[in-house]
Amino acid sequence: MAATQVVLTNVDRGIWQESLRLDASSGIKLAGSPDWSLQKTTLRGGLSDSVEVVTVDNGALSMSVFPTRGMGLWRGQYRGIPIEWKSPVARPVHPKFVNQLERGGLGWLNGFNELMCRCGLSFNGPPGNDNGAELTLHGRIANLPAHYVAIEANDAGVGTLGVTGTVDETTMFGPALRLSSTVSTEAGSNSITISDRVTNLGAQPTELELLYHTNIGRPFLAADSRLVAAIAEVAPRDPHSATGATKIARYPGPITGVREEAFFFELLGDKSQQTSVMLVNAAGDLGISLTYSLRELPCFTLWKNPQADADGYVTGLEPGTNFPNFRGFERAQGRVISLAPGATYSAAFTMTIHDSAAAVKDAEARIKSLQTREPIQHPQPIAKYSQV
Amino acid sequence: MAATQVVLTNVDRGIWQESLRLDASSGIKLAGSPDWSLQKTTLRGGLSDSVEVVTVDNGALSMSVFPTRGMGLWRGQYRGIPIEWKSPVARPVHPKFVNQLERGGLGWLNGFNELMCRCGLSFNGPPGNDNGAELTLHGRIANLPAHYVAIEANDAGVGTLGVTGTVDETTMFGPALRLSSTVSTEAGSNSITISDRVTNLGAQPTELELLYHTNIGRPFLAADSRLVAAIAEVAPRDPHSATGATKIARYPGPITGVREEAFFFELLGDKSQQTSVMLVNAAGDLGISLTYSLRELPCFTLWKNPQADADGYVTGLEPGTNFPNFRGFERAQGRVISLAPGATYSAAFTMTIHDSAAAVKDAEARIKSLQTREPIQHPQPIAKYSQV
Amino acid sequence: MAATQVVLTNVDRGIWQESLRLDASSGIKLAGSPDWSLQKTTLRGGLSDSVEVVTVDNGALSMSVFPTRGMGLWRGQYRGIPIEWKSPVARPVHPKFVNQLERGGLGWLNGFNELMCRCGLSFNGPPGNDNGAELTLHGRIANLPAHYVAIEANDAGVGTLGVTGTVDETTMFGPALRLSSTVSTEAGSNSITISDRVTNLGAQPTELELLYHTNIGRPFLAADSRLVAAIAEVAPRDPHSATGATKIARYPGPITGVREEAFFFELLGDKSQQTSVMLVNAAGDLGISLTYSLRELPCFTLWKNPQADADGYVTGLEPGTNFPNFRGFERAQGRVISLAPGATYSAAFTMTIHDSAAAVKDAEARIKSLQTREPIQHPQPIAKYSQV
Repeated sequence: MAATQVVLTNVDRGIWQESLRLDASSGIKLAGSPDWSLQKTTLRGGLSDSVEVVTVDNGALSMSVFPTRGMGLWRGQYRGIPIEWKSPVARPVHPKFVNQLERGGLGWLNGFNELMCRCGLSFNGPPGNDNGAELTLHGRIANLPAHYVAIEANDAGVGTLGVTGTVDETTMFGPALRLSSTVSTEAGSNSITISDRVTNLGAQPTELELLYHTNIGRPFLAADSRLVAAIAEVAPRDPHSATGATKIARYPGPITGVREEAFFFELLGDKSQQTSVMLVNAAGDLGISLTYSLRELPCFTLWKNPQADADGYVTGLEPGTNFPNFRGFERAQGRVISLAPGATYSAAFTMTIHDSAAAVKDAEARIKSLQTREPIQHPQPIAKYSQV
Repeated sequence: MAATQVVLTNVDRGIWQESLRLDASSGIKLAGSPDWSLQKTTLRGGLSDSVEVVTVDNGALSMSVFPTRGMGLWRGQYRGIPIEWKSPVARPVHPKFVNQLERGGLGWLNGFNELMCRCGLSFNGPPGNDNGAELTLHGRIANLPAHYVAIEANDAGVGTLGVTGTVDETTMFGPALRLSSTVSTEAGSNSITISDRVTNLGAQPTELELLYHTNIGRPFLAADSRLVAAIAEVAPRDPHSATGATKIARYPGPITGVREEAFFFELLGDKSQQTSVMLVNAAGDLGISLTYSLRELPCFTLWKNPQADADGYVTGLEPGTNFPNFRGFERAQGRVISLAPGATYSAAFTMTIHDSAAAVKDAEARIKSLQTREPIQHPQPIAKYSQV
Repeated sequence: MAATQVVLTNVDRGIWQESLRLDASSGIKLAGSPDWSLQKTTLRGGLSDSVEVVTVDNGALSMSVFPTRGMGLWRGQYRGIPIEWKSPVARPVHPKFVNQLERGGLGWLNGFNELMCRCGLSFNGPPGNDNGAELTLHGRIANLPAHYVAIEANDAGVGTLGVTGTVDETTMFGPALRLSSTVSTEAGSNSITISDRVTNLGAQPTELELLYHTNIGRPFLAADSRLVAAIAEVAPRDPHSATGATKIARYPGPITGVREEAFFFELLGDKSQQTSVMLVNAAGDLGISLTYSLRELPCFTLWKNPQADADGYVTGLEPGTNFPNFRGFERAQGRVISLAPGATYSAAFTMTIHDSAAAVKDAEARIKSLQTREPIQHPQPIAKYSQV
C-alpha cells in the first residue's frame, strides 16, 4: 500500500510538466478500477492558450480541473453522462484574456464556463466600491493560476486519486490569502470531493468570502427537473426572482430571453450539520447532488438561468460562506468571515452522480429525512438576505 | 487538381502547430508561380511573445496574417514593395499586453500597428457608455485570438492559397458573434482577398458593427499622393477635419504634430454595387486599391493622419457597415446591423497593388467610370454622418 | 582580450533562447573569479509563467534581472547574504497578470516584489487624470517586456559580465520612449551597476519621469538599521510621515499594521555631483549602498514600510529624476523632464555590498565627508516637495 505523487508544477523549484499521464501502465493497481488515469495537458491556441487541464479519471467518473483558473472544475462525465453546461463562452479562457474591469466590473463573465468556479476569496458578489476597495464581480480567485500542482494515486482500499493545487491571492498593501485545494475520488466511484483550505498569510486579520458556483446543464437540467433540498428558510433575491417564488424547486425548459432568478436558502442538516442538495431530472432517474457541512458553508444560493441553450441553459447550486451580495451588505449581516493572521478556513463538498431511479430515490429520501420542520418560504425578498 | 489543407490550430481537438511551412517542396505545383509558400511562425519575446503569424506568399505578393489578433493583416509586400505603415508601436502586440480600458477606453491604441485590423464586432468607434454597455475604442475583435486556423493550397487553375481562421467574440449575458475569415490569393497575382462571415451564435438578435481599418503608409503614401474614389457624398467628421475639406483627396508629406482628419463617404458603385477606392502616389506609377461591395460595406471612412514618420505617417481606407462614430449615434442613424439568431453577415474586399503607370491609369479609369453624377461635397460635418 | 556576446531575444530577427547558460566551461576565463556565470531561464507555472530571468553571477555577487518586467532586478545575493525583501506577492508576476487599472489605478501593486523596479517612463507617482491622461500608479515600464536581450562576458581586466535589454514604452497618439538598460559587474566584485538610456523615439517633445524603486529587506533592514546620507534638505511627504520626522534615519523592527512613511531629500554630492546613500545594520557590519550622480538623479525618496514580515518589511531607497508625486504637481515644480525628439536621457547607479565593519566604516566616512553643511530638516511637509 503506497501513495505515488507527481509534482506537475512548483514555481519555487522550477518544476513544470507540460503534459503527463499516469495510469495503470505505471504498475500502480487500484482495486476499484483498472481504467483509472491522471492526465495533465496544456491547451494551445485561441483564448485557451496555456490553460492547464488536469483530468482525474477513476474509471467511471472523470473530472477536469483548471490549475490555471484557480483550481476550478471545467467539466466531467460519469459513465458517458456529461457533467457540464454549455456557456456562450465555449472554450476554457486563460486569465490573461480576462479583464475583470470590463463591462463595468463584470469582465469575469468573459471567462465563465466552468462546472464549478470559486467566487472569492477576498470578495464575491457584484462590483462596486466597498469603503475604498474597488470590487469586481465574484473576485479574483477564478482567474489566478496555481503555483503548485501535484497528482497522487493511492492504492489503499479501493484506491484513491487526487489533484492538489495551491493558489495565492495576494497583493502589496492588501489581503494575502492562500487556497490549497484537493480534488479526490475513489476508483470506480460515482463521486468526487473538493477539499479546500484558505489561509491568511498576512499579519493582520482579513476578510474571506467563499462561494462554490456549481453550474449544471443538460442532461441533469431540462424541463421539469427539480431541486431537492432540506429547507429551513428561503427567499427570492430580488423582486424579479419573487415572480418565480411559487415554483422555486421546479425548472422550465429553455426560454429565449428569460431573466435569471436567484434564491437564498438556509438549509437543514443532520446532527453533524451535514446536508445535501440534489438536482433531479423529470424522469427521476438521473440526479447530481452536493453534500457538505453547513458549519463550513451555511449559505446556499440557487441560480436559475433557463435561457435558450445557445445563451447558456444552466442552473447554479452554490454553497457558500455568504450569499453573493455586495460585500458591504454581507458584512453588515455578519456573513463575512474575519480570518486571523495565520488562520485557516476549511470547506469541502462532495459531488455525486445518481444514475438510476433507485439511486435517486435513495438520495431524495435521505435529503427529505432532514426536513424535520416546515420550511419558511418568503414570497418576497427579505432584509436578512437581500438589500431590499 | 486537389486542395491540400493543414489545420494549424483547433483548440477543440487539441491541434496546434507552433511553426510549419508548406511550399513547392511538398510536391504541390501551382501554375501561377513556383515560389509560393504558406508559413506559420509563433513570435517569442517582448510584447510579441506568443503572437502567431501566418504568411501567405503567392510568389509575387505576400501577406502576414495575425490569427492571434482577430485575423488582422500585419503587413505584406509585392515584388519588394512594402505594404505597411510604421506605427510608433513597432512590433506585433499580443492581446495579453493590451488593456483596452487604459487611457480612458483607448487602450486599443497600445497594440495598433496593422495594415488591416477589424473594428467590431459588437461595437466600434469611440469609448463610452451605450445604454449601460461600456464600450471601448473599436471593440474586442482585433484583440481576440482564433481558436481554429487552417491553411490551404489548391492547384486548380493558376493555383490558390488561403488561410482561414475562426474567432469567437462571446461572453455570458452578452453578444455571441463568430468571425470566420479567409485570406486568399492566386499564385503570382497582385491581389489578395479577405472574405468574412460573421454569425450570431446566440438565441436573440444582436448588434453588429464591422469596419476594416486598412492603414497604408510609404511608399504608397507620400506628399501629393491622391485618393481616387467614386463619390456620391462626402463630409468631414468634425470641425477640425472641415479645415481640410477642400483637399480631401490630396495628401501632404509628414507634418510634425498635425491633428488627424477624417471624412465620411457614400461611394458610387457599378450595377452590382461593386466599387473601388485607390491610393496613388504622386508619380502615378504606384497604387493600392480596395474593391468591395457597397451592399456589404456601405460606409467608407477616410482617415488622414500625415504625422511625422516617427509618430505614424499613415492614411486609413476604411470600408465598413457603419461609420466609426459612437454606437448610439450610428444606431440612431440606422447604420447598426441587427443580426438574427443564427444569421450570418458576409463581407469581403480585395486589395490590389498597381505597380506601373499603365496599371494605375487603368484602375483609375475604372473608378472614374463609376462617377456617373456630381459628388456632393459638404464643407462642414452633416447630421446624417456626425454627431454635430 | 575579447568580449563574447550572446543575443537571448531579438524579436525583429526571430531570436529567442528559452534557457541558456554561459560560464567558464565555455573557455572564457575571467581573472576576477573562476565561478562566474550568465544564465537565462524562463519560469513556468502560476503567476510567474513565461517570466524571463537572467542571472548575472560574478562569483561573489549574483543578481537576477527581469527582461519581462522592464529590466527590473528581482533579487541577488553576495557571498550568501540575500539582497532582497519579502513581499506578500511571493513570486515573480508576469505582466499579463497585472491589470494596472485595478484597485482604482493601484493594480501595479499586484506584481510588486522586486529588489529594484523602475517607476516611469512617461509618469510615475499616484494614479489620476493629468490633463486628460489617465495615469496609473508608477507607470507602465515595470510591466513591459524587453524585445531585445543580450548577455556579454568580457575578459579585459578582472573580467566584466553584463546583461543588456531594450524595452519600448510606446503607443499610437502618445509618448514613444525606449529604455536601453545594462546591468554589469566585475568578476569577484561586491557591486553591480545599472546604466540606463531613455530615448524619445517620437517626433515631438515628450515628458519623462524615472525613479529607481530600490527595495531592501532583511538582513540589511532590521531594528536599529540606519540610513546614511549626505543631506542638503529633507521633508516628510505628508502629515503622517511627519510624525516620524525626528527619526528619519533610524528604523524600527517590524510593527504589525504600521502605516508607511516617506521622506523627500535633496542630497549633497562631491565636486562631480556623485553621491551615495547607504543602509547599515545595527551592528554596523553590513551595509548596502547606492552610488550615483545627482545631475542625473537629483531627487531622493526614502520609503519606510516597517510592516510585519508577513506584510512586507521593507525600505525603499529611491533615486529619481523626480519625487513620486502626481505628475501634474511634479510638472508644476519643474521636476518633469521634457525630452526632445531623438534625445536621450542617461542615468546610472551602482549598488555595493559592504560586508564587514571596516567596509561599512569606510563607506560611511566617504558619505559623511560630503556633508559639508548642516542639513535642513523640515518637521512638516513643504510646498516644494509635497502637495500640502
